[in-house]
Amino acid sequence: MAFDVLAFAAHPDDLDVAMGGTAAKLVRAGLRVLFVDLTDGEPARYGPPHARRDQALCAARQLGVERVVLDGQDRLLIDSVPARMAVARLIRLHRPRIVFGTEGSGVHPDHQALTDIVVNGVFYARLPNWDRVEAGAALEGTESHEIERLFFARCRMERAWTQFDFAVDVSDEYPRKLAAIAAYESVFQHDQANLVDRYRAEDQYVGSLVGVPFAEPFRARSPLLVEAPTVLNRVAFG
Amino acid sequence: MAFDVLAFAAHPDDLDVAMGGTAAKLVRAGLRVLFVDLTDGEPARYGPPHARRDQALCAARQLGVERVVLDGQDRLLIDSVPARMAVARLIRLHRPRIVFGTEGSGVHPDHQALTDIVVNGVFYARLPNWDRVEAGAALEGTESHEIERLFFARCRMERAWTQFDFAVDVSDEYPRKLAAIAAYESVFQHDQANLVDRYRAEDQYVGSLVGVPFAEPFRARSPLLVEAPTVLNRVAFG
Amino acid sequence: MAFDVLAFAAHPDDLDVAMGGTAAKLVRAGLRVLFVDLTDGEPARYGPPHARRDQALCAARQLGVERVVLDGQDRLLIDSVPARMAVARLIRLHRPRIVFGTEGSGVHPDHQALTDIVVNGVFYARLPNWDRVEAGAALEGTESHEIERLFFARCRMERAWTQFDFAVDVSDEYPRKLAAIAAYESVFQHDQANLVDRYRAEDQYVGSLVGVPFAEPFRARSPLLVEAPTVLNRVAFG
Amino acid sequence: MAFDVLAFAAHPDDLDVAMGGTAAKLVRAGLRVLFVDLTDGEPARYGPPHARRDQALCAARQLGVERVVLDGQDRLLIDSVPARMAVARLIRLHRPRIVFGTEGSGVHPDHQALTDIVVNGVFYARLPNWDRVEAGAALEGTESHEIERLFFARCRMERAWTQFDFAVDVSDEYPRKLAAIAAYESVFQHDQANLVDRYRAEDQYVGSLVGVPFAEPFRARSPLLVEAPTVLNRVAFG
Amino acid sequence: MAFDVLAFAAHPDDLDVAMGGTAAKLVRAGLRVLFVDLTDGEPARYGPPHARRDQALCAARQLGVERVVLDGQDRLLIDSVPARMAVARLIRLHRPRIVFGTEGSGVHPDHQALTDIVVNGVFYARLPNWDRVEAGAALEGTESHEIERLFFARCRMERAWTQFDFAVDVSDEYPRKLAAIAAYESVFQHDQANLVDRYRAEDQYVGSLVGVPFAEPFRARSPLLVEAPTVLNRVAFG
Amino acid sequence: MAFDVLAFAAHPDDLDVAMGGTAAKLVRAGLRVLFVDLTDGEPARYGPPHARRDQALCAARQLGVERVVLDGQDRLLIDSVPARMAVARLIRLHRPRIVFGTEGSGVHPDHQALTDIVVNGVFYARLPNWDRVEAGAALEGTESHEIERLFFARCRMERAWTQFDFAVDVSDEYPRKLAAIAAYESVFQHDQANLVDRYRAEDQYVGSLVGVPFAEPFRARSPLLVEAPTVLNRVAFG
Repeated sequence: MAFDVLAFAAHPDDLDVAMGGTAAKLVRAGLRVLFVDLTDGEPARYGPPHARRDQALCAARQLGVERVVLDGQDRLLIDSVPARMAVARLIRLHRPRIVFGTEGSGVHPDHQALTDIVVNGVFYARLPNWDRVEAGAALEGTESHEIERLFFARCRMERAWTQFDFAVDVSDEYPRKLAAIAAYESVFQHDQANLVDRYRAEDQYVGSLVGVPFAEPFRARSPLLVEAPTVLNRVAFG
Repeated sequence: MAFDVLAFAAHPDDLDVAMGGTAAKLVRAGLRVLFVDLTDGEPARYGPPHARRDQALCAARQLGVERVVLDGQDRLLIDSVPARMAVARLIRLHRPRIVFGTEGSGVHPDHQALTDIVVNGVFYARLPNWDRVEAGAALEGTESHEIERLFFARCRMERAWTQFDFAVDVSDEYPRKLAAIAAYESVFQHDQANLVDRYRAEDQYVGSLVGVPFAEPFRARSPLLVEAPTVLNRVAFG
Repeated sequence: MAFDVLAFAAHPDDLDVAMGGTAAKLVRAGLRVLFVDLTDGEPARYGPPHARRDQALCAARQLGVERVVLDGQDRLLIDSVPARMAVARLIRLHRPRIVFGTEGSGVHPDHQALTDIVVNGVFYARLPNWDRVEAGAALEGTESHEIERLFFARCRMERAWTQFDFAVDVSDEYPRKLAAIAAYESVFQHDQANLVDRYRAEDQYVGSLVGVPFAEPFRARSPLLVEAPTVLNRVAFG
Repeated sequence: MAFDVLAFAAHPDDLDVAMGGTAAKLVRAGLRVLFVDLTDGEPARYGPPHARRDQALCAARQLGVERVVLDGQDRLLIDSVPARMAVARLIRLHRPRIVFGTEGSGVHPDHQALTDIVVNGVFYARLPNWDRVEAGAALEGTESHEIERLFFARCRMERAWTQFDFAVDVSDEYPRKLAAIAAYESVFQHDQANLVDRYRAEDQYVGSLVGVPFAEPFRARSPLLVEAPTVLNRVAFG
Repeated sequence: MAFDVLAFAAHPDDLDVAMGGTAAKLVRAGLRVLFVDLTDGEPARYGPPHARRDQALCAARQLGVERVVLDGQDRLLIDSVPARMAVARLIRLHRPRIVFGTEGSGVHPDHQALTDIVVNGVFYARLPNWDRVEAGAALEGTESHEIERLFFARCRMERAWTQFDFAVDVSDEYPRKLAAIAAYESVFQHDQANLVDRYRAEDQYVGSLVGVPFAEPFRARSPLLVEAPTVLNRVAFG
Repeated sequence: MAFDVLAFAAHPDDLDVAMGGTAAKLVRAGLRVLFVDLTDGEPARYGPPHARRDQALCAARQLGVERVVLDGQDRLLIDSVPARMAVARLIRLHRPRIVFGTEGSGVHPDHQALTDIVVNGVFYARLPNWDRVEAGAALEGTESHEIERLFFARCRMERAWTQFDFAVDVSDEYPRKLAAIAAYESVFQHDQANLVDRYRAEDQYVGSLVGVPFAEPFRARSPLLVEAPTVLNRVAFG
C-alpha cells in the first residue's frame, strides 16, 4: 500500500511527542501517513508488558495515521545492515515522497542509532542491483525508490538543539496531539517528572519563536529549497 | 505606491548579483518589487561618474523591478539614526510584506553597515509614536508598518557563508539575471577577475547543493515557519 | 550606597522578564540588588506617557530590588563614551561584586547597544587614572572598582540563543516574578501576542532542560570557574 | 562499597592527566573517588608488560583515590553492549552521585569509544527490568541507580576543545597531580616529546583563562544548573 | 615500494573528483602518489560489472598516480579492526609522509566509515608491539610508521562543508582532472544530473573564494603549522 | 619607505605579546617589518606617563622591527573614517605585501575597534579615486595599494579563541620575544597576575597542539591558499 509519508522512531510515543501535530496536519491535508516504531518500547518502566504497543495504535488513531511496530529490542538498537534493510524495505514497499526520523543524542543510545538507521535505510532504498550483493536478499521482491525529502523531528528526551531548520504551526492540531500522548497511559500516569507539561512548554516555546501558539521544530540534512520566499509564513519579528 | 517587496543594498549591482533571479521570479509571480540602493556606487573604479546609476535602472528593467537610488556616500555608509530612518520611511510609504537586505562582512564596510541599517530600519518602521521623539521628524506623515518577513541575500564580494537557511531555484530566470548583470558595463567590461563567471559558478554551486541548475541562497533572522513540510521542494539527496 | 549586584537593561521590564526570578532569589539570600534601566521605555506602544517608570518601581518592590531609571532615549541607545561612563560611574559608586546585563540582538537596536555599553562600562570602571583623560571628567569623585563576575540574561524579545552557560532554578520565586511582570499593566494589558504566556513557556522550557519547573538561562563572557563540580546541581539526565 | 564519584577512562594515566587535580580536590573535600581504567594500556610503547598497572595504582595513592583496572584490550575498545554493561554494573554497585569520563577524539579510537561507553553505561545503569532482556544477565544481582551529574574531562592527547563548560581551580593540588603523573615512569621517562611539560602548560593556560595558576577544564552533556550565580568564582576579567 | 603520498577513498572516482587536481600537482612536483579505493564500487548503477575498476586505473594514468583497488564491499563498508588494519598495513608498507582521506557524511554510509577507517588506520600504523595483540597478526612483517600529515578532501556527494582549512590552486591541472573524471564512462555517460558540470562549478566556486580559477578544499584534523605566513598565497581580498 | 609587513595594534605591547616571535622570524628571513601602535597606551596603570612609548621602541629593537606610535587615545579608540584613513595612509605609503592586526574582543573596547579599523583601512587603501570624496583628503598624495594577505594575531587579554587558522613555530625566536616583552618594565614589574608566565604558557600550549615548544596562533579573513599541501609542516599527530 502506498503512503505519502513514512516516519520512523525507536520507541512508541517518540513520534507522537516529536511530531504528532505535524502528522495530524498532513493527514488533514489528505496525505497518507505511516508511523513505524522500530521497537515496542519493552521492557517499559511502568505498566504490564506490551501495554505500550496497544497504546501506540490508539495514539495513531487520534492522529489519523497508520502504525506498525517492528521487533527491534528497546535499549539495544544499533545501526546495522539488517536494521538499514528493514527501513529500506518499508520505503520500497510504501514508496513515500517524504520520510521523517527523530534526531537527538546523548542520553538514550537507541536515539542516535535510529537517526543513522533512517539516513542509511533511505540511501539503501534508492540503490539498484541489490541482487548482486548477498545482504541484498532482505530487499528481494522490491524495487528501488528515491524519496523527495528527509526531515528529522526533535527527540524530546535528548539534549536541546542549538538550532532548527524550520517549524510547523500545529496550533489547530494541538488537542489531537495531546490526545495521542494521553493514550500512553502506562508511560505518563506515574509521571512524576510532569513530562506532558514539559513537552507542551517546549511546543509553546518553539511557537513563541515564530509567533504562533504551538509549533514543532524540524531539521533537514540537505538545504531547504523553496519555490519562492513567499511560501514562508509570517513570523514574530520578520 | 504600494510594493509587495522592498530590497535594500549598499551599491547598485549588489542586489542584481545577490538575488536578481529571485526578484525576477517574484515579479513573474505578479508581485511588485522595489530595489533600493543606498548609494550610487560612486566614485566607481571604472567608467564615467554616475554611469552606474543609469546602468542600475537598465538592470532593473531586465528584472522587471522598480528601482530608486538614494544619496548615501559609497565607502562611508554607517548604521546611524538618519540611515535607519531613510529605510523606515520607505517601508512606511510602500508598505511591503517582505523586505530583503544583503548580508556579509569582512571586506567592504558598507556591507556590514547595510545589514544593520536594514534590520534597524525595519524595526523603526513598526514603532508608533515617533512624534514624541525629536529624531522622529524624519517619519512625519507616515504610519507605522509591520512587515511579514525579512530575508538576507548573500553579498557576493564578502566571505563565504558557513550555511544558509533556504535557497530559491532561479534556473528559469537565469538568462534575465545575466542580462541584468550585463547592464553594469562599466563594472564588468574591465573585469580581469572574471567576476561574472564567478557569480555564475556560485549560483551553480548552490544549485548543485539542492539539485537544480542555478539557485540563490538566503538567510533569515527569525526561524522559518512553514504551513507544512510539503511546501519544501525536492532536493538532491532528500 | 553599596550593592552586591547591579543589573543593567535598556528598558523597564527587560530585567524583570529576563532575570526577575534570579534577582528575587539573590535578594532572598540577603544580597542587595540594584536594577538600572538606561531608558524609561518611552514613547511606549500603549498607556499614558511615563506610566512605565512607575510600573518599573512597583515591579522592583515585588522582587525586593532597588531600581533607578536613567534618562537615555528609548530607540536611540548607542554604545558611546558617555553611555559607558554612566554605567562605569554607577559601578564605581555602588561597588558590586556581580554585574548583569541583557544579551540578544537582531530585533531592537537598543538591546545590542546595551550589551556593548555594559561590557565597556565594566571595563572603564576598573581603569585608574581617568583624570588624565578629558572624557574621564564624568567619573570625577569616584574610585576604580573591579567586579568579580559579569553575566548576561537572555533578552526575550530577541532571537533564541543557540546555547547558554548556566541556568538558575527559579521555581520557588516564580510567583514573585509573575507579580513583577504583572506590574507592567500598560505593556501587557493589551497583550494580543500573549507575551506573558510566552515568557512563562520559555522559563518552563529552560526548566525542562535541567529538570526543574522554571529556570532562567545566563551567559558569561569568561569561562565558568567553580570551586568543585559538586557546586553544580542535579539535572534531568546527568 | 559506595563511592561518591566514579571516573572512567580508556587507559591508565588518562584520568590522572585529564583530571588528577580535581580528583585530589574532591578527595580532600571528603568524597570517596574511584578511578576505573577500561584497559591496562598494554602493549605499551615502553617498559615491561604490565608495568603500567602497578604505576596506575601508585598514581592513585598520590591522589587519594581508589582504582580498578578492567580487562578491556587497549587499541580495540569499542562501544558495545558488554562494554556498556561493565560500566553500568560498576555504577549500580558503587552508586556514585557524580560520574566522570574523558572526551576527545580524532587520534586514538579508544578515546571516542570510551566516551560513548560511559554515556550509554550511565543510561543502562538507571533502567529497571533488565531481567526481561537477555543481555541484562550481566547486571544480575544489581539494582538500578540514577546518578546526579555526568562530566567529561579533556583527553589530552586528542584535538583541542573549541570550548569547555567549566574549569576547576587545581592550583593547591598541583604538586599532587604532578606526583601522580610522575608515577608513570615507563610512559614518561623516554618522553622525547616533553609530554609532562605540555600537560602542565595546558593546565596553566586554562588557569590563565580564569585567573588562577592551574585549572582543569570540563564539559557536561546537560546544561549547568546552579543554585545561584554566586556559586561561580571570580575570574580574570569578570 | 615507497610512496610520498597515500590517498584513501571508499569508491573509485571519489578521489579523482575530490582531489584529482591536487594529486596531479603533487605528481608534477615529483612526489610518488598512490590512490587506494577500499571497494571497486560494484554493483554500480550503470555499466557492466567491474567496468569501474578498469576506468579507475585509466583515470589514475591521467593524473600520474598509482592505484590499487581493495576488496571491500561497496554499500557495506564499516569502521572495523580488519578495515583499520588494511589501511595500517598499506601505510607501513609504503611509508608515506602525507595521507589523504575523504570527509563528508549524511548520504552514503560508506563515506563516514571511510573517514573513521583512515583516522584509525593511521593511528594503528604508528603503534609498536602489535605482535602482543592477537588482531595484530594482520600487520605481521611490517614496521610501525608515523606519517607527517593527514588531510581530508571533500567527498562531493555529501553535504556541503561549513568551512575548510585550506585550498589548493589546481587551475593548471584542471584539464588533467577533467580527463581523469571522464575516464569513468559508465558513471557519467548516463549522467542526467550533470554531475561533471556540478563538480566543475564547485571547484570554480572554491577558486572564487581564494581568487583563482579552480581550487580544491581540504580539512585537517590537527591545526595547520607553517614555517612562516609567507608560505600562504595571495587570495582575493587578503 | 617600503615595508614587506605592516602590523597594527591598539596599544604598545599588544603586538609584542601576540606575535613577537613571528615578527622576529620574518625579520630574520629578511623581511622589513613595521609595527604601528594606534595609541601610546596612556594613561597606563603603572609607571610615569609616556614610559610605554620608550619601552615600545626598545621592544621593537629586540625583535628587529621598526615601530611608530600614533596619537590615538587609549580607551577611546573607535572604528571611524579618520581612523580607517590613518591605517590606509600608512599602507599606501609603505606598500606592504602582508598586513597583521590583532583580534579578540569582550574585555577592552579598543581591541574590537582595532580589528574593525584594520579591516576597513586595508579596504580603503585599495580603492582608487578618493579625490572625488571629501573625506579622501586624508589620503592626498598617496596611491592605492592592494595587499596580498591580511592576518590576525590573538589579542591575549581577550577571550580565548575557539579555533585558529594556522600557527607559526616561534621556538627559535622565543628568547627574543621574551626580551621584547621584558622591555615593558612599567607594565610587568608590578605584575601580580604573572602575566608574562601566562603568555608563555599560552605559547607553549599552542605549541603543544602542533608539536613544537612554542607557537603563535593566527586567523585569516579569507580562506588559506597554499601552493601545495607540502608547505604545511609536520604536526603532533598528523
